[in-house]
Amino acid sequence: MSEFKLIADHLTGLGAARPDVLLDVGDDCALLDVPQDRELALSIDTLVAGVHFLPDADPEGLGHKALAVGLSDLAAVGAEPAWATLALTLPEADAHWLSRFARGFATLAQQEDVRLVGGDLTHGPLAISVQVHGLVPRGHALRRAGAKPGDLVCVSGALGDAGLALEHLQQGEPLGDYLRQRLERPTPRVALGEVLRGVASAAIDLSDGLAADLGHILAASGCGARIELDRLPLADQVAGAVAARNDWRLPLCSGDDYELCFTLPPEHHAELKVMAAAAGCPLTQVGEIEARTGLRFVGADGHLWHGEVGGYDHFAITGS
Amino acid sequence: MSEFKLIADHLTGLGAARPDVLLDVGDDCALLDVPQDRELALSIDTLVAGVHFLPDADPEGLGHKALAVGLSDLAAVGAEPAWATLALTLPEADAHWLSRFARGFATLAQQEDVRLVGGDLTHGPLAISVQVHGLVPRGHALRRAGAKPGDLVCVSGALGDAGLALEHLQQGEPLGDYLRQRLERPTPRVALGEVLRGVASAAIDLSDGLAADLGHILAASGCGARIELDRLPLADQVAGAVAARNDWRLPLCSGDDYELCFTLPPEHHAELKVMAAAAGCPLTQVGEIEARTGLRFVGADGHLWHGEVGGYDHFAITGS
Repeated sequence: MSEFKLIADHLTGLGAARPDVLLDVGDDCALLDVPQDRELALSIDTLVAGVHFLPDADPEGLGHKALAVGLSDLAAVGAEPAWATLALTLPEADAHWLSRFARGFATLAQQEDVRLVGGDLTHGPLAISVQVHGLVPRGHALRRAGAKPGDLVCVSGALGDAGLALEHLQQGEPLGDYLRQRLERPTPRVALGEVLRGVASAAIDLSDGLAADLGHILAASGCGARIELDRLPLADQVAGAVAARNDWRLPLCSGDDYELCFTLPPEHHAELKVMAAAAGCPLTQVGEIEARTGLRFVGADGHLWHGEVGGYDHFAITGS
Repeated sequence: MSEFKLIADHLTGLGAARPDVLLDVGDDCALLDVPQDRELALSIDTLVAGVHFLPDADPEGLGHKALAVGLSDLAAVGAEPAWATLALTLPEADAHWLSRFARGFATLAQQEDVRLVGGDLTHGPLAISVQVHGLVPRGHALRRAGAKPGDLVCVSGALGDAGLALEHLQQGEPLGDYLRQRLERPTPRVALGEVLRGVASAAIDLSDGLAADLGHILAASGCGARIELDRLPLADQVAGAVAARNDWRLPLCSGDDYELCFTLPPEHHAELKVMAAAAGCPLTQVGEIEARTGLRFVGADGHLWHGEVGGYDHFAITGS
């Protein structure tokens, strides 16, 4: 089966119909209409078989996740999703695999009003790159820089679910519906990103874990933070694992949760509940930005926790 | 060495400085300013080691080619290049390879006024996806659809060079400078694309060979074409190979030339020379659009050539 037939059969007309798509899949380029009062936001991410997912992973889930990862980046800057492109490398021309992948991709695209406007289908080791394109009102994008001492550090949803799910999979243990959903079908916090525009002082999405990703905010903003461990929002299973291991690395260092971490000037504290309702997800204050650089974790007993976190060389933990 | 350090050292600040880049590499998204009087054109392409290039290929050439392939798509719609993103998958954190790749990419980016605004660096089998973004005056993009009976079929540059170069490489034969340059450092016909806006009736870039790519124009435009074989612009080495083999597949069916094929209403025939001078590349009329569907190749003796061309199932050659 040819590349062109596979594209025509499975990757054409995916997602929402949008009047701003002037030329869709099928020419040398897609042509798009960006409104004058918007900035264009874009982000590209790759998922590689054997690195980011197991080679026998459910293709429908992969289609969802490959798009969700990008939409999570758009959420982090407060952009409204618009278009996506897909560079897909497949070991063989497997129409069944492709149709299921396309279904997962298209379902999320439809939900989030995204159109697949272009792509490239090539032969090679299984890998998926998706670029997402969103629109954000001029001058109102959220950035990593902007956090100030006294700002509240907040996160959406719960932390460590995807990490625990991956542990279960790798150990061949059964995976319940909740953890499977959290690993394979993460919900990008798109509505939250839009709610946070003009309110949050900085934001990032949690793809590499709270310690590393909050570290990016701190590095970009030139400040530090104090995290109160007993405030971390944890599902029962994650809380149980933390207690059994006496180790906080699962919620602090495991990736793939695709929640947002953001900093909020204290005068907006009272709005957290309203914002959570508008965004359709729990929001939890987990700490505070401090002038002193570094990231400090404080236990329920008020003592600093000195466990190893992170692992990225650009990000030095100062636990004391 | 971490992903973040490799990005900071080798993939940050690549290409031209552009005032329309509001947020560059280093946040969740890049933020870009699209002028009100322009449409956004975009295209993504993947090069996979062992499929699109030999695994030991010169990384500097790969950096050039990965960007050139995308710029050729922008040229085909008449867009002015602006920004690029890069999804790069590497088997190991090889800073030397990456610095050479980045140099090849950055040199072409600087020449064509392109900024690398984002990307993803992942671990896995060597593969390179580049998305390019260009700007085209509203309503003036070139498309594959639009060719009409009587229009001249024209191509830029010469055909079959990259195909002959690949044959030499695969057979372990020495490669002269001209053919090596044509395979490894193709020149995207960006200036030509801009010259053709408002003049050409249809255009495409030649990535899969004239027979297949002109076939896309014919399919989109609902017409056919007659190509005169002795008009094909051929370098001496390609002309020699065609004569020795008595076979036109090299200039008709081999890919990777990244020239443009376009159709020109006959009233613009006299402008071809001026357009070639403005675009800085030879332009040659090789045939004519006809109402009868299908693609016909006519030899110097006036007889139809019935050789096998193409190979894409969506594209039926009617040689009689």
